[in-house]
Amino acid sequence: MTAISTPVDNGVDIDFLREAREALGAEPAGAQFQWRVTNTWVRGTHSQTTAQGFFGLGEEQDRPRTFHFDADHPELFSAEDQGASPTEIVLVALASCLTAGVATVAQNRDIQLRSVTATLEGDMDVRGVLGVDSDVRNGYSNIRVTYSIDADASREDIEALVAQSQKRSAVYDIVTNPTNVAVEVA
Amino acid sequence: MTAISTPVDNGVDIDFLREAREALGAEPAGAQFQWRVTNTWVRGTHSQTTAQGFFGLGEEQDRPRTFHFDADHPELFSAEDQGASPTEIVLVALASCLTAGVATVAQNRDIQLRSVTATLEGDMDVRGVLGVDSDVRNGYSNIRVTYSIDADASREDIEALVAQSQKRSAVYDIVTNPTNVAVEVA
Repeated sequence: MTAISTPVDNGVDIDFLREAREALGAEPAGAQFQWRVTNTWVRGTHSQTTAQGFFGLGEEQDRPRTFHFDADHPELFSAEDQGASPTEIVLVALASCLTAGVATVAQNRDIQLRSVTATLEGDMDVRGVLGVDSDVRNGYSNIRVTYSIDADASREDIEALVAQSQKRSAVYDIVTNPTNVAVEVA
Repeated sequence: MTAISTPVDNGVDIDFLREAREALGAEPAGAQFQWRVTNTWVRGTHSQTTAQGFFGLGEEQDRPRTFHFDADHPELFSAEDQGASPTEIVLVALASCLTAGVATVAQNRDIQLRSVTATLEGDMDVRGVLGVDSDVRNGYSNIRVTYSIDADASREDIEALVAQSQKRSAVYDIVTNPTNVAVEVA
């Protein structure tokens, strides 16, 4: 009878995203989002953070679940290693944003992904955070992200996929460009 | 007999940090750290990231445990909400870095903390990530961090504590200043 074709399925609802893009282009007010977390100190450098609700599409969005994170410094700094370091958590955010983008762009381009892994390395001279030398920055001097992708596509197409994900990534933008942060005491 | 004095104890080993500061000032090679994570795509916008070893003090540092993170996009974007959004995870990193700094600076200044909480809000116009308008940035336009701190100190001292934490925070630096990120396909 008819030939069976397997549609590309990376688990991304690309029709929804195309409609959202059109709808929010026409109604920019709905595109104003606010993401939030609450952080509580436990002891030493250990703290816990939760993410639950956010604001978007013009209203409060209550999620059915709450996400919990522990953060701490490693034993190397005489801390208790009760969670990943904040500097590692930045890499988690960057990795997960770029990978979500790879899957989304692949769906948009009809590329079936089989596996995607990334390793991230961030170089930091800790003389900055320790206040040894004010010429040394506190943050990363360099971050390297290396993708291994198995997909139904040429190497050239895979490279273009990763490049497009970078171009649309919120966290890549936050890390590579300056972002305003206002810190105050209530 | 003698009066009992309760030493300030926020759970931070400040003597160790003072010694580390001195030692790494004398031996800058040991201060070159590399933090790492590995990210694996699951399906759709869901991925998992692990943090385990890192490099520091001139050698590989194997941690006794591995930290796991799930990230995803919320149901609002027709995703499965299997983890916090990457944009929320950036706020987790920022919050936990600043709070670790508050505890450390408090210990250094002999200020006993009783409780520390912070709420973070990040404003994002999602027309950026959706590619609706190339004049809209992908990342946060603004992040607000608000601390509530109960401590054995004046309001002025508490504000100075938070200001000093900002000044020495790795993640605050990464978010507020540009950081090089190189992304490639292996």
